[in-house]
Amino acid sequence: MKVGIIGFGRIGKVHAESLIRYASGIEVKAIADPFISEESKLWAKANGVKEVYSDYEKILADKEIDIVLICCPTDQHFIVSKKAILSGKHVFCEKPVSHSVEEILEIKKLLEKHNVLYQVGFNRRFDKNFATLKEKVASGMIGDLHILKITSRDPAPPPISYVKVSGGMFLDMTIHDFDMVRFVSGEEVEEVFVFGGVMVDEEIGKAGDIDTAIISLKLKSGALAVIDNSREAAYGYDQRVEAFGSKGQIIAKNELENTTVIATKAGILSRTPKYFFLERYMQAYTEEIKQFVESIKSKSCTVCGVDDGLKPVLIGLAAKKSLKENRPVKIAEIEKEYGIKS
Amino acid sequence: MKVGIIGFGRIGKVHAESLIRYASGIEVKAIADPFISEESKLWAKANGVKEVYSDYEKILADKEIDIVLICCPTDQHFIVSKKAILSGKHVFCEKPVSHSVEEILEIKKLLEKHNVLYQVGFNRRFDKNFATLKEKVASGMIGDLHILKITSRDPAPPPISYVKVSGGMFLDMTIHDFDMVRFVSGEEVEEVFVFGGVMVDEEIGKAGDIDTAIISLKLKSGALAVIDNSREAAYGYDQRVEAFGSKGQIIAKNELENTTVIATKAGILSRTPKYFFLERYMQAYTEEIKQFVESIKSKSCTVCGVDDGLKPVLIGLAAKKSLKENRPVKIAEIEKEYGIKS
Amino acid sequence: MKVGIIGFGRIGKVHAESLIRYASGIEVKAIADPFISEESKLWAKANGVKEVYSDYEKILADKEIDIVLICCPTDQHFIVSKKAILSGKHVFCEKPVSHSVEEILEIKKLLEKHNVLYQVGFNRRFDKNFATLKEKVASGMIGDLHILKITSRDPAPPPISYVKVSGGMFLDMTIHDFDMVRFVSGEEVEEVFVFGGVMVDEEIGKAGDIDTAIISLKLKSGALAVIDNSREAAYGYDQRVEAFGSKGQIIAKNELENTTVIATKAGILSRTPKYFFLERYMQAYTEEIKQFVESIKSKSCTVCGVDDGLKPVLIGLAAKKSLKENRPVKIAEIEKEYGIKS
Amino acid sequence: MKVGIIGFGRIGKVHAESLIRYASGIEVKAIADPFISEESKLWAKANGVKEVYSDYEKILADKEIDIVLICCPTDQHFIVSKKAILSGKHVFCEKPVSHSVEEILEIKKLLEKHNVLYQVGFNRRFDKNFATLKEKVASGMIGDLHILKITSRDPAPPPISYVKVSGGMFLDMTIHDFDMVRFVSGEEVEEVFVFGGVMVDEEIGKAGDIDTAIISLKLKSGALAVIDNSREAAYGYDQRVEAFGSKGQIIAKNELENTTVIATKAGILSRTPKYFFLERYMQAYTEEIKQFVESIKSKSCTVCGVDDGLKPVLIGLAAKKSLKENRPVKIAEIEKEYGIKS
Repeated sequence: MKVGIIGFGRIGKVHAESLIRYASGIEVKAIADPFISEESKLWAKANGVKEVYSDYEKILADKEIDIVLICCPTDQHFIVSKKAILSGKHVFCEKPVSHSVEEILEIKKLLEKHNVLYQVGFNRRFDKNFATLKEKVASGMIGDLHILKITSRDPAPPPISYVKVSGGMFLDMTIHDFDMVRFVSGEEVEEVFVFGGVMVDEEIGKAGDIDTAIISLKLKSGALAVIDNSREAAYGYDQRVEAFGSKGQIIAKNELENTTVIATKAGILSRTPKYFFLERYMQAYTEEIKQFVESIKSKSCTVCGVDDGLKPVLIGLAAKKSLKENRPVKIAEIEKEYGIKS
Repeated sequence: MKVGIIGFGRIGKVHAESLIRYASGIEVKAIADPFISEESKLWAKANGVKEVYSDYEKILADKEIDIVLICCPTDQHFIVSKKAILSGKHVFCEKPVSHSVEEILEIKKLLEKHNVLYQVGFNRRFDKNFATLKEKVASGMIGDLHILKITSRDPAPPPISYVKVSGGMFLDMTIHDFDMVRFVSGEEVEEVFVFGGVMVDEEIGKAGDIDTAIISLKLKSGALAVIDNSREAAYGYDQRVEAFGSKGQIIAKNELENTTVIATKAGILSRTPKYFFLERYMQAYTEEIKQFVESIKSKSCTVCGVDDGLKPVLIGLAAKKSLKENRPVKIAEIEKEYGIKS
Repeated sequence: MKVGIIGFGRIGKVHAESLIRYASGIEVKAIADPFISEESKLWAKANGVKEVYSDYEKILADKEIDIVLICCPTDQHFIVSKKAILSGKHVFCEKPVSHSVEEILEIKKLLEKHNVLYQVGFNRRFDKNFATLKEKVASGMIGDLHILKITSRDPAPPPISYVKVSGGMFLDMTIHDFDMVRFVSGEEVEEVFVFGGVMVDEEIGKAGDIDTAIISLKLKSGALAVIDNSREAAYGYDQRVEAFGSKGQIIAKNELENTTVIATKAGILSRTPKYFFLERYMQAYTEEIKQFVESIKSKSCTVCGVDDGLKPVLIGLAAKKSLKENRPVKIAEIEKEYGIKS
Repeated sequence: MKVGIIGFGRIGKVHAESLIRYASGIEVKAIADPFISEESKLWAKANGVKEVYSDYEKILADKEIDIVLICCPTDQHFIVSKKAILSGKHVFCEKPVSHSVEEILEIKKLLEKHNVLYQVGFNRRFDKNFATLKEKVASGMIGDLHILKITSRDPAPPPISYVKVSGGMFLDMTIHDFDMVRFVSGEEVEEVFVFGGVMVDEEIGKAGDIDTAIISLKLKSGALAVIDNSREAAYGYDQRVEAFGSKGQIIAKNELENTTVIATKAGILSRTPKYFFLERYMQAYTEEIKQFVESIKSKSCTVCGVDDGLKPVLIGLAAKKSLKENRPVKIAEIEKEYGIKS
């Protein structure tokens, strides 16, 4: 099988390396990026990538290419996804598919008519820690799920210019956590309530966004979940999950920079969590591409399809409304707005 | 100084032992309990307690007694507190003072007129772990407080007979956590929202109560807090606090039964948290009595006065209302109902 | 039963409190100490101790007293033990019984003729962490024992005046660890080799002692053990045991001052081990006295008899010889010197 | 620069991948292995390796090739190293250079005459945990080093056929730990004493080897070290280092399979250490090759030269003698046997 990668920034390159190293029988044939760096061009040459385009349409037009990875900026995910599906390619699309529910619904409709696979890049599902946690919950090891707690804090806020186009913290950052709630619980979210605020940087507030929040969620079964978010944790990238049930609890803790522990009069000092998201989730990025390729080989569903791309956006919109109107908001209310049958 | 103890069950005896062992210049002169056990009588004799009454009025009538500890059932806390204050005794009263706001307000009014000290038994404030955490937060070590997270789960639910008279989970169990929010943050709570449910035992639901909850709180400064409660944690008494701020985070973890760790093919197994509340908080019970006695000696305020007894009840009532009406409830709304100026 | 305590310093008082609080049917009737403090006299009075002597012979002469606790300086343990046994008292003697093998052998011989119980104060056997570890090893949870590792480091060296009369690090400090090797393994030591040095304080070297050592031991079964000692660990009292066997490993870790953990840019900081030996081992001191009293009540053997007092001294002497002659030394060699049949 | 790899088993491939991914300006031109697998041939083709030989002499004869990696069986390390140096190649040689001191001395002499770099593959020096520990020790963070403790236990013993040709546990397995003692302390070892035994598998004993040992070491400065080895730890690959000094202690703990922790009635269960040495040390393998290439680029010494290959063999021989003769053995004694001036 031959692959084309659309958008060759940091994450495009990560996926390219995963494909070359781990997926046998796969050839990365072409890359398209209007702003590709000289270094990336050299990398492409050294790794046997035949074509480097600036126009991604050339990838879509290449009949030899079966698979397309969409790694360009978020605002182009929709249009490229659409064209790629119409060209008959299997698609891996970075999250989120779109901030617009209508656009995701359009992709969904297209996929019903075209026999191609579509995977959304919620990489954390493939993290060995969270995947193990989910598996244990699903196996009944902690009994019925009662409370799910997610701590998700970035090491530093993004630039204000990015905040302005990000769709807001819930659709940009918490969307991963909404996905994690669905992934771990195996359930849909029914209702959301948010307390939030601007505590990290006033500029984020001026840009109309928040940077800190406690998001409570009620799941279909009645189980409860809570997410706490901050745009800035001084000690690094804080990514933990606790699932509590009738028979016990399972926690996925942070991965630390290294295992050293220093004991002095001042106390016992261990290292902070891995700071950079690529370092933290590299294993997950590799795993998600591998599973995507295996889905295509075995002609089965992808593990994270278009519906998994849609649901977290609906929860995010409910969270936005809850914050604005200071009341709990049902997902059904958002679905109704968009004419979605739940 | 001479002390009388009213109610000599488990907790009355704990306080008596603390007084005898740690508080020099203190004599436990009398105990009153209509249902005192033979064993307790022997204990009293062996430890030099001169009088064992069934009627607590005899303690209040004893001019030699300066201090009264109220350790009888909750529904008598108010009336005994009232009479003890009127008798001119310093009072240590187990939590809660009352489930009735009016009654606590009456105690408060009485205290303004009588020159006696009054301490409410929120023992967790004196736990070395939580006290250290609070101290570090107050010292600015984690910068401005952004998010406070409290996990508070009992090892097993109380009998249904108790549930029925407990005032409900918020006033019986979460009240400790409401106090902890105020203690750690040094702030008042402004607004509360609750998602709750019956997951542990249907009988609790039939008794009109819940057993599992996520309680979100907004503090005066805008900082956020969240409490997660369960009436039954299979692995024991789970009592943790996380305070997250602009400069970092401080966590108080559980105390384990012992420090052994077994590594086998199956994994690395360490011990569960201390199961029994008396074992978990014994150091705190000793410390609170010591500090109460020191307050009296130095004629200063108690570290946990009647207002500290009132505020958690107001938050608990707001939580009850939030759960019932599925909306965020301001503490000011509850205060208004009772004519309290916030 | 009535108890007399000979020597009422820090440790005598600890045992007195344990007896009063935990051992029902026990009365501490008399204390003897030529240098007793005023504070201790007050304590004795407040706790119902009838007699305070300076001469311990008065305790031995009191027919009512069944039990004697020997808590005076080490150099008097032998003579007081001897006289107490001859007076027909049950004896609890602080460790070590004596630095002289001949003296311990004399006590041993006496005990064969007198029907009294004798317990040596190796308190660490009663520490809940080490006791759990031993129990798990004995139960076969880690299979056959292969390697036993003991880390035992003091928070600060004793005064040089004490070092000079201490009998040397092996008989003063490591003797606890030699006991722990026997206790955990349930085996006798066969051979010892030592590398040691003076690294903490040159004055210790001038006094003819060492302050740092690696002590390797071969047990009867062929299993191996190693002890590492230091007279000064900057971060506190470091007391850990690791038992490694054919099916796994069990570790008893340090107890920390409290459970708080602070995360900042600098790292994740937890507390140091409990610093003071009385704080670290208080639970063990209580437990050893309780078990001693229970042995007397049930007329069974004590859990740590005179042989358990002898064996660690023999190992200590072998260690001294190994260090001096830079060669492995068999315990049998030491036993032969003293005419002991192994 | 162009590289040839001699021996293309598991570890040869690991190094090839590291070179291709991390070392820019490097081309893996040729591989030589008489028993190369079909899969490896495909891999070579897909990754642009131009030549696949069965005879390694062809690599040595290729004037374009600057660097040779020796990854063939241990018994050929010497002869291939010798020929490669004579061919003027820079050499990276897997550990150990040889079990024969004479052979290593011959390599050493050759290197004095030929202007090529030589690095021995002690990969653990490059592990981020141990490297951090070493750096902190060197920086003085724990003051003067007093005690160094290394736990090094394999998850399962090698096949008996391998044991017979391995040179014995000390030269095969402990050699890494001897290197770690030198690496962390920055010091030479002066004297060794061993207690060892056969506890894991009698067949190992029949093959003339041991499988369990406590190895005590005295360093030049007087500091002490101790290594405990087992050929089989039921819970996985146990690789820990503790460095204790005048100002504190630094520990490098195991890396676990994942960060999940399950709490149930039975206890709190976390994962076992990474089991497989390639998984455990992959980061270190990548780093050592990177630093080797950088040494060549910058024409500096390698970080682990031929002397670093020699010294652990001398310590291993001293350990063998100590075990056999049951006495401490000085390294100088071994050096004298081989006419080495220490």
